[in-house]
Amino acid sequence: EEVEKLKALKLELGDESGSTGKLILKTPKGTRDYQPEQMAIRESVLNKVIKVFKKHGGVTIDTPVFELKDVLTGKYGEDSKLIYDLKDQGGEILSLRYDLTVPFARYVAMNKTSTIKRYQVAKVYRRDNPSMSRGRYREFYQCDFDVAGQFDPMIPDAECIKIVQDILTSMDIGNFVIKVNHRQILDGIFEVCGVAKDMFRTICSSVDKLDKSPWEEVKREMIEEKNLDPVAADAIGEFVRMNGGMELVDKLESTSLSESSTAKNGLDSMRLLLKYCALMGCPQSVSFDLSLARGLDYYTGVIFEAVLMAEVRDEKGELIQVGSVAGGGRYDKLVGMFDSKNRDVPCVGVSIGIERLFSIMEANLANTKVRTSETEVYVATAQKNLCEERLKLCRELWDSDVKTEHSYKKNPKLLSQLQECEISGIPLAVVIGESELQKGVVKLRTVATREETEVLRSSLVHSIKEKLNELKASQ
Amino acid sequence: EEVEKLKALKLELGDESGSTGKLILKTPKGTRDYQPEQMAIRESVLNKVIKVFKKHGGVTIDTPVFELKDVLTGKYGEDSKLIYDLKDQGGEILSLRYDLTVPFARYVAMNKTSTIKRYQVAKVYRRDNPSMSRGRYREFYQCDFDVAGQFDPMIPDAECIKIVQDILTSMDIGNFVIKVNHRQILDGIFEVCGVAKDMFRTICSSVDKLDKSPWEEVKREMIEEKNLDPVAADAIGEFVRMNGGMELVDKLESTSLSESSTAKNGLDSMRLLLKYCALMGCPQSVSFDLSLARGLDYYTGVIFEAVLMAEVRDEKGELIQVGSVAGGGRYDKLVGMFDSKNRDVPCVGVSIGIERLFSIMEANLANTKVRTSETEVYVATAQKNLCEERLKLCRELWDSDVKTEHSYKKNPKLLSQLQECEISGIPLAVVIGESELQKGVVKLRTVATREETEVLRSSLVHSIKEKLNELKASQ
Repeated sequence: EEVEKLKALKLELGDESGSTGKLILKTPKGTRDYQPEQMAIRESVLNKVIKVFKKHGGVTIDTPVFELKDVLTGKYGEDSKLIYDLKDQGGEILSLRYDLTVPFARYVAMNKTSTIKRYQVAKVYRRDNPSMSRGRYREFYQCDFDVAGQFDPMIPDAECIKIVQDILTSMDIGNFVIKVNHRQILDGIFEVCGVAKDMFRTICSSVDKLDKSPWEEVKREMIEEKNLDPVAADAIGEFVRMNGGMELVDKLESTSLSESSTAKNGLDSMRLLLKYCALMGCPQSVSFDLSLARGLDYYTGVIFEAVLMAEVRDEKGELIQVGSVAGGGRYDKLVGMFDSKNRDVPCVGVSIGIERLFSIMEANLANTKVRTSETEVYVATAQKNLCEERLKLCRELWDSDVKTEHSYKKNPKLLSQLQECEISGIPLAVVIGESELQKGVVKLRTVATREETEVLRSSLVHSIKEKLNELKASQ
Repeated sequence: EEVEKLKALKLELGDESGSTGKLILKTPKGTRDYQPEQMAIRESVLNKVIKVFKKHGGVTIDTPVFELKDVLTGKYGEDSKLIYDLKDQGGEILSLRYDLTVPFARYVAMNKTSTIKRYQVAKVYRRDNPSMSRGRYREFYQCDFDVAGQFDPMIPDAECIKIVQDILTSMDIGNFVIKVNHRQILDGIFEVCGVAKDMFRTICSSVDKLDKSPWEEVKREMIEEKNLDPVAADAIGEFVRMNGGMELVDKLESTSLSESSTAKNGLDSMRLLLKYCALMGCPQSVSFDLSLARGLDYYTGVIFEAVLMAEVRDEKGELIQVGSVAGGGRYDKLVGMFDSKNRDVPCVGVSIGIERLFSIMEANLANTKVRTSETEVYVATAQKNLCEERLKLCRELWDSDVKTEHSYKKNPKLLSQLQECEISGIPLAVVIGESELQKGVVKLRTVATREETEVLRSSLVHSIKEKLNELKASQ
């Protein structure tokens, strides 16, 4: 048995170091390379998101990928164990950013910013146990839009919800619901149900599990693990299974909940939020949902989360678990944690679950050919010894801003050049030949139809631009 | 004295932890936040670079910000000490990427890619002693374009030089020189000057210092620190002070250098490169310069570096040291280092010194107002109680893809709303008023001229688009 163990161990070690002395070729656990096809899809998804952020007046900033460890400490509760630390190589103690919200709050405090509407698209890092099949990685993009500043109630909050609606609509991925709730309403519920104040956050994190677990399981956790009185749990259960619209606000005001002034404040806010959302044109997709709790500690007011209703399947026809595709809320106390005079700057923001949107788009495009370059023209040669003519012609096209490629072989075969055009989806090819050169012409080939016309060498750029416009118009 | 020391220590500790219990607010050493104004400039510079990469048929990939430490080991020579390591938190031993070239080579080997023309724009990390005033940071962007694959000599190499020329021309930052040389010519020089073969790399790194130090100093280093025979040093000195064009290739072929077959190969390659560069239209800016050595070990053929000739001054009128703004070369053996069968994939590539280009652009625009948002219309209210009308109007504009902002106050003052437009450079304002609403109109204000016209509420989107086109045309 011992021998078996040793053999296994040796095999393992051999695997690690590689029997040839070469290292194993892989990216770190939970990370991946993005191939050109994936990048083309990401670029188009990101451009749609950024377009909406800009439509709502967002400016962008950038912060370093790592922060002083102290900046991140005490902001993420239990999840702090998932933070990546850098090695102490002498100097400061650093950690990779875990999200974009805490660095943003640090930025606002450090720059003494009083008002900003900013978006940021960047990667964040979590030492989570990656579930690649569910699209969860240790390195992933976040796309955040946040409004910092002292304003009137619910106006920026409602605009964040409008932004979620605009982004999801522009993606064309089917129906979605934007669930909204308010931390003060949740606190009020706990209050009137008889939960002790120091239990609010832990009971709240139990409620947060309702999107994945049935009520009975959540209830058991509250009673058995957190020692909550079963009567209180049942009372909470009555509330958190409710959802609706403005009529639910009315209904709740006539219940015991209105006895809590905290809940009353929350309900007033919710009434205003729903009114503004309706005015901004997102009434159908917004649902006041008492089961929405959101895990993070720093929220202080409105919270929201967008969930896709459509079933999305991958290339094998298997259902992709999509879940939440955007989430956010108000956090009025986070900036103050960084300010030496505890000066608060109220903030509300939204984070788009861009990795999930990428996965959906990838699945949708699984059987489609995605172009990875934007090349418009391929310059080909029909015989040998035309390399110099080819380079001169390429130069002319590049200098006229035509996106141009050619073979890096000196005397490539015509067939392989034309095949390259078809494989890469390049719309046009220019074919240079001896006899044509003598006549002062070249062949212009439409790759898709294989149709060829002779055009004057001297007006080639003009002919190409005309043809490209023609092709674009016919699409 | 002991007491003084303790006091000083206490002061230091106090500084570190903050007397109020708050942490010091800063970004890690050698890093910085980018403000919206800086980001707007970066975005425009990056877009120009990427446009050229796409014009030459580049596709893009992405690799993780960290790699297995073994991937980076043994690739950077002395500079390896500047690599950032992650803390061992159980699991793999990781390091932050030091450049984009080594991860690219790892990608090519791992994916068994035989041909790719890729660009990548991403941040890299070096634990250097940052010289912020010279624009050197520990976290900075690199923009790389590389061609991997088995092709005919000098064709992709010449295109890389054309790409540098296209990028620097598009930046409009004055004259530049692209210095080119060949590792085989340098090796040939060392050979005929009597340098021992195992001294080639260290003597090469002395030559590399010629861009910053005079020959006499480099010579002293060769003789005193590296024990080179003074006769050999003088002979090297004769060569490395030469530069020119095709005529220099001719001249060198008639010297002792032609006795080295390595140098002969290098000179043949250089002749071909200069010919291709001329055909692609960059003869003036390319200079065959024997002093160019480039520090990195992995180059095997052509090397090049672009240097700005223009004097650039900052807002205080002080000269900014610009130096090299692009560099690259051929590295045919790097991919093979990752392949289990030592399968080589020849590569040539260029890295754009984008941080220096950013600094130049920032200096050039120091006294110019840079817009940070793209907002086209600000929706303002002239009296109280028009918040609902405002939200409805904003919604209409957003849904028509008009980039729109409004105040987040319920009843903002008209003056402060119009001031906001002028400060942010928003071109148009829509002013909603009670009496106008009753007439079914709103005021459309051109912010720069303060001219106002009444337009029909029902055709507002049309009027706005018309006005925006008019303003664009008159710029």
